Amino acid sequence: MSKKLKMGMVGGGIGAFIGAVHRHAAALDGNIELVCGAFSSTAEKAQASGRALGIDEQRNYTSYQEMFDREAELPAGERMDFVAIVTPNHMHFPVACAALKAGFHVISDKPATLDLNEAKELEALVAHTGLLFGLTHTYTGYPMVKEARQWIADGKLGKIRKVIVEYTQGWLSEKEDDDNKQATWRTDPTKSGASGCMGDIGSHAGNLAEYICGTSIEQVCAELSIFVPGRMLDDDGIALIQMGGGIKGILHASQVAAGEENNLTIRVYGEKGGLEWHQQEPNSLEIKWLDSSKQILRTGGNHSAIAAANTRTPMGHPEGYLEAFANIYKNFCQAVLAFQQGEPSDSQSLDYPGIAEGVRGMALIEALVESSRSSDKWYSIKP
Amino acid sequence: MSKKLKMGMVGGGIGAFIGAVHRHAAALDGNIELVCGAFSSTAEKAQASGRALGIDEQRNYTSYQEMFDREAELPAGERMDFVAIVTPNHMHFPVACAALKAGFHVISDKPATLDLNEAKELEALVAHTGLLFGLTHTYTGYPMVKEARQWIADGKLGKIRKVIVEYTQGWLSEKEDDDNKQATWRTDPTKSGASGCMGDIGSHAGNLAEYICGTSIEQVCAELSIFVPGRMLDDDGIALIQMGGGIKGILHASQVAAGEENNLTIRVYGEKGGLEWHQQEPNSLEIKWLDSSKQILRTGGNHSAIAAANTRTPMGHPEGYLEAFANIYKNFCQAVLAFQQGEPSDSQSLDYPGIAEGVRGMALIEALVESSRSSDKWYSIKP
Amino acid sequence: MSKKLKMGMVGGGIGAFIGAVHRHAAALDGNIELVCGAFSSTAEKAQASGRALGIDEQRNYTSYQEMFDREAELPAGERMDFVAIVTPNHMHFPVACAALKAGFHVISDKPATLDLNEAKELEALVAHTGLLFGLTHTYTGYPMVKEARQWIADGKLGKIRKVIVEYTQGWLSEKEDDDNKQATWRTDPTKSGASGCMGDIGSHAGNLAEYICGTSIEQVCAELSIFVPGRMLDDDGIALIQMGGGIKGILHASQVAAGEENNLTIRVYGEKGGLEWHQQEPNSLEIKWLDSSKQILRTGGNHSAIAAANTRTPMGHPEGYLEAFANIYKNFCQAVLAFQQGEPSDSQSLDYPGIAEGVRGMALIEALVESSRSSDKWYSIKP
Amino acid sequence: MSKKLKMGMVGGGIGAFIGAVHRHAAALDGNIELVCGAFSSTAEKAQASGRALGIDEQRNYTSYQEMFDREAELPAGERMDFVAIVTPNHMHFPVACAALKAGFHVISDKPATLDLNEAKELEALVAHTGLLFGLTHTYTGYPMVKEARQWIADGKLGKIRKVIVEYTQGWLSEKEDDDNKQATWRTDPTKSGASGCMGDIGSHAGNLAEYICGTSIEQVCAELSIFVPGRMLDDDGIALIQMGGGIKGILHASQVAAGEENNLTIRVYGEKGGLEWHQQEPNSLEIKWLDSSKQILRTGGNHSAIAAANTRTPMGHPEGYLEAFANIYKNFCQAVLAFQQGEPSDSQSLDYPGIAEGVRGMALIEALVESSRSSDKWYSIKP
Repeated sequence: MSKKLKMGMVGGGIGAFIGAVHRHAAALDGNIELVCGAFSSTAEKAQASGRALGIDEQRNYTSYQEMFDREAELPAGERMDFVAIVTPNHMHFPVACAALKAGFHVISDKPATLDLNEAKELEALVAHTGLLFGLTHTYTGYPMVKEARQWIADGKLGKIRKVIVEYTQGWLSEKEDDDNKQATWRTDPTKSGASGCMGDIGSHAGNLAEYICGTSIEQVCAELSIFVPGRMLDDDGIALIQMGGGIKGILHASQVAAGEENNLTIRVYGEKGGLEWHQQEPNSLEIKWLDSSKQILRTGGNHSAIAAANTRTPMGHPEGYLEAFANIYKNFCQAVLAFQQGEPSDSQSLDYPGIAEGVRGMALIEALVESSRSSDKWYSIKP
Repeated sequence: MSKKLKMGMVGGGIGAFIGAVHRHAAALDGNIELVCGAFSSTAEKAQASGRALGIDEQRNYTSYQEMFDREAELPAGERMDFVAIVTPNHMHFPVACAALKAGFHVISDKPATLDLNEAKELEALVAHTGLLFGLTHTYTGYPMVKEARQWIADGKLGKIRKVIVEYTQGWLSEKEDDDNKQATWRTDPTKSGASGCMGDIGSHAGNLAEYICGTSIEQVCAELSIFVPGRMLDDDGIALIQMGGGIKGILHASQVAAGEENNLTIRVYGEKGGLEWHQQEPNSLEIKWLDSSKQILRTGGNHSAIAAANTRTPMGHPEGYLEAFANIYKNFCQAVLAFQQGEPSDSQSLDYPGIAEGVRGMALIEALVESSRSSDKWYSIKP
Repeated sequence: MSKKLKMGMVGGGIGAFIGAVHRHAAALDGNIELVCGAFSSTAEKAQASGRALGIDEQRNYTSYQEMFDREAELPAGERMDFVAIVTPNHMHFPVACAALKAGFHVISDKPATLDLNEAKELEALVAHTGLLFGLTHTYTGYPMVKEARQWIADGKLGKIRKVIVEYTQGWLSEKEDDDNKQATWRTDPTKSGASGCMGDIGSHAGNLAEYICGTSIEQVCAELSIFVPGRMLDDDGIALIQMGGGIKGILHASQVAAGEENNLTIRVYGEKGGLEWHQQEPNSLEIKWLDSSKQILRTGGNHSAIAAANTRTPMGHPEGYLEAFANIYKNFCQAVLAFQQGEPSDSQSLDYPGIAEGVRGMALIEALVESSRSSDKWYSIKP
Repeated sequence: MSKKLKMGMVGGGIGAFIGAVHRHAAALDGNIELVCGAFSSTAEKAQASGRALGIDEQRNYTSYQEMFDREAELPAGERMDFVAIVTPNHMHFPVACAALKAGFHVISDKPATLDLNEAKELEALVAHTGLLFGLTHTYTGYPMVKEARQWIADGKLGKIRKVIVEYTQGWLSEKEDDDNKQATWRTDPTKSGASGCMGDIGSHAGNLAEYICGTSIEQVCAELSIFVPGRMLDDDGIALIQMGGGIKGILHASQVAAGEENNLTIRVYGEKGGLEWHQQEPNSLEIKWLDSSKQILRTGGNHSAIAAANTRTPMGHPEGYLEAFANIYKNFCQAVLAFQQGEPSDSQSLDYPGIAEGVRGMALIEALVESSRSSDKWYSIKP
């Protein structure tokens, strides 16, 4: 892939965690060039960030709308090919809409939008414009997650019966200081949406379970909690779930699991065996057999084509979070290039999360919130 | 402790898994002598088993009632001091009642009885006779489990918020053959009680959570499942739980988690930190801190008095299942000796599971079954 | 096995670590009865220990010679069947000789003797008397160690090329107090022999490597060290080794590896794959394949007959140090019973370490000490 | 750091493993731009590689000398700032010399040269030109390796006594095919130097031990082996080592450890405690205490400034091999920028491996080879 794609960025100014992650991920393969940005809603900070990032002064914008307007005016080979959205959650939707309307492909941090209605509206807009939309559900970018999905798709574990997916963190165990910017917006309903913990990380857990199992969560029985007094949104949640194909299981997310780092874990059990994967040691995939010894599959081993295509280093040279993130960018960029060459560029075959996953995520969050408020046991997710 | 206690056994004939386990556990410390038994409901098998075990012909009985009658007639220093009940579940209650009525202390495999009514009746009989009743909830016998309980009791992790307890096995992933005796009676309601998986292993999980947290499960929202067609009892179950003190969590048990061995695991999170313990590697207890590095406590380390009292070997000399089981016997025998010397012999201070745990267990099983049948979210456990 | 064997014990009075371990191990299967003892070289302590252990006053001896004389006079069904020697190292040889001369089988803690000359003399005496001699090289008692040996014997890993065996502890990292009895005699040449660390634990490591590989260490290039000032014997040692069949490797032992508990580990590599075993998590055996995924074999799995015969509980019910120790006793007792019935009772087929391993161990220790003193690279072990 | 540095590359054409790794590592932080290259000694392949990488035709050179000549003629802001050398080993030295003579800073894959003489000559040339030379000893780029070094430098583990460093791979367990380019040149003395396994990976192990301990290997007692018939260079080696400050230990490297991936592991023991790190799970650093529970330090935790400066993501977002590699590039680039601004740019304070490490590495390899040929026990490394 010799052509470098040109990327613009909205949000992600200096000090923003996720902006730096997106930039590392986009840079890793040497195929994407960051050419412009509107890095902050504060003009001064936007400018300073752009300068620190070595952005051309002319393309260091102070508002995203200005960026879209001006970039659209540039000649084809010069203007940005796509925009990365790394703002706080509540801005994902308006920025994405503006970008699409200005004719730009979008790769957005998750969640896609603040609520299900927005997500459906965005889905319609994506369909209407025919442009590409990628969503950085990072964790499906890991090679061993892709291998797990392939094993299940191939029926190697037999019919799937159970899935237990958990995402536990401890960093919100205490009331956040007002100057912890990360914590503050994530616990503010107007910026995060109807759910805190479930919106932030439970949605990743749900996406991971659906990606690996190849089927959807259909019903939930949820209990969301606020453990830290004074907080407005859930900082913890547990749900019984039912997925297509008769799969039952648990979805558990917590940001008050004191001492946990970023512990996303999934276990799946079928009639013939099970599998287990831990994001914190992502290069191992345990395969447990009903009638044989446990096996440990490893990144870089002789695995499925899809795992191999998302691996950069040989066995024993560990890959991590940025590599998984970079896989989303890499696959999205292949779609952009395919699009530019008039080839099929759907998220399914090119294996990156798209607007469909965005809608599913918002529907799941809504269902978890509604179920938690209800005294009925089961709540069905609107398809 | 120089005096050896004399033990009789009901059930546990040759080929019975749990009978051999009880005998190993009772023998380990050299303080208990197996002097008599009614090892099977089949006279011939009972006799053969007793002979194989080197039991005196005169005390190799063919029925438990005969054993209680005859032993009661023996002089004090000669007759058995207590009886161990290791029959299938449905016989625990009648044998325990007969033993108590004949004046013998009882140590019984779990569950205490087939249902909650029996358990309460047994509780009343224990109280009425003033005799001792021990219940082999093995997993609370591990030193690191006792250490975990102590940490929480001492408030080292702060107020507890969450508990996730899971007990997964895979051995019932396929329909049991008729000649798998273990599997057959465990899936037969007349021999196992109202629940299969939850009765067999979910009750251990509940007991472990209550023991470590020092509080009771008060409400459950359960989904029990039968995954293997043709089975009459649940082979899998998940429940949201609420415990005293505002603790929320998950109780998960499965016997169709293909590839799992005997994977009992508990995680507890408090305001300051969390802990994690795995029965399959029982000599490590992970302590996770909100503000510091994770620590690994190890059996034999410089820990609480209660952990030390239940440890036999120095650090790095691994203890296992039989040692944990033996701790129940050891502590129960200390109670028997104390009783014989007129000293306090309550299960609480001498740290062995008793009839209270038996009643709690049956109440939990009943609640899980009832909740699973209900469309209401929460079901309260009868105190 | 209905007949209980009668055991006498020399050493192992109250407070002695290894004496209690031997008693637990002997008791575990319910087939051995401790009937007599000379538990200490101090008469008063010997008596007190025997009383605490519930030994009959008549058979609670104050000297081992007295015990052997008196027991030999008892009628056949009453006198002890064998004696367990659990004294400090320097007494192993004289006690074993006295026992054999009095007609008793011996099971001895390791090392067999203080030096190679004694070991050869003992070997001759064992041969001369035709009696049985067992040596408690505990670590070969683990089921997964036996499984490892079987895999290699079966050629599953191809021709073996490398072995790395390490036994690291940290408890002698500081100068021992005079009242640490364990530490004191282990670092005293007159009680421990010519080597400290290598004699105490390096010999276990060598035995483990030879047992698993089925061949002998032939040459060593050793560097023994005294890291703690004031100590008279090595507290650490490393050696390059060469074994039969062209195997090369490392033997490493340390008692100043601060923070290590009882970390005996072995790795073996053949042409097709490797294996790895850790004593501190003894129920897993890693099999690494050149061309396939790593497998984890587990105690209780569907393994070799020899592993199965030394396993008591099903998969996932962890076995530990005492169970491994008990396997030595169990297998030795099978030999004693076979002997009493006039059947073959050799250590090889009945799988317990005997005097041959004792001689090998002393030859290894001598070679390590001599090599360490030499400026030549390689030192050959006297066969 | 807003200014992007311009990089040229020699070697690393399409299909070359290490070339791609260097490019990923250089790209990750978005601060380096690959502007030119001489990607192969075969002109056609060089051109094709450059095109595939999107290199400007004018700067897609067919020989390194041509590249240095032409780039030197370009104006300051346009020509490359430094050159990365990723050729087979035997070309490192001539290319580095040519680059330095042409006035370019050099970052080179390791080993620095084919032998010690070349290394010293290169060291002199670096000193003479005053230019910068970086050497990609990747593994010292990991944050937890830097943390380990800091702990020891701070004396937290007390005086260091032991170090065990091992680097085991299995990929050369069988005779390499002629078409396995990786394997072929690594086992050819004219391209790899005097040692195979020790030169390729043993040198990494030595560098890691010296970096963490802050002292040098002074003596070795080595046994190098060729296990696979027909091979000309060692495929395995073990050495007893002695380091400055009285540290003793083991250096073990193997490429015939069947089933191992890229298993670089180090353990260090001091008077107060020990540490252990595994490259395959690089985000954990175990700290073992003589008198307390083991701690697990994690990448992203609240650690030393030097670890923090080399970490990109928060705890629980695993970093891997490319991130470690990128740290070498990042730190080297800081030195280049400092150099360009007339500031101190030494490898010591800016923490990247330089020519001193290159000379040390070649001295170690030479010593291991010589020691292996000698019948004397110890061989001193020439300072």
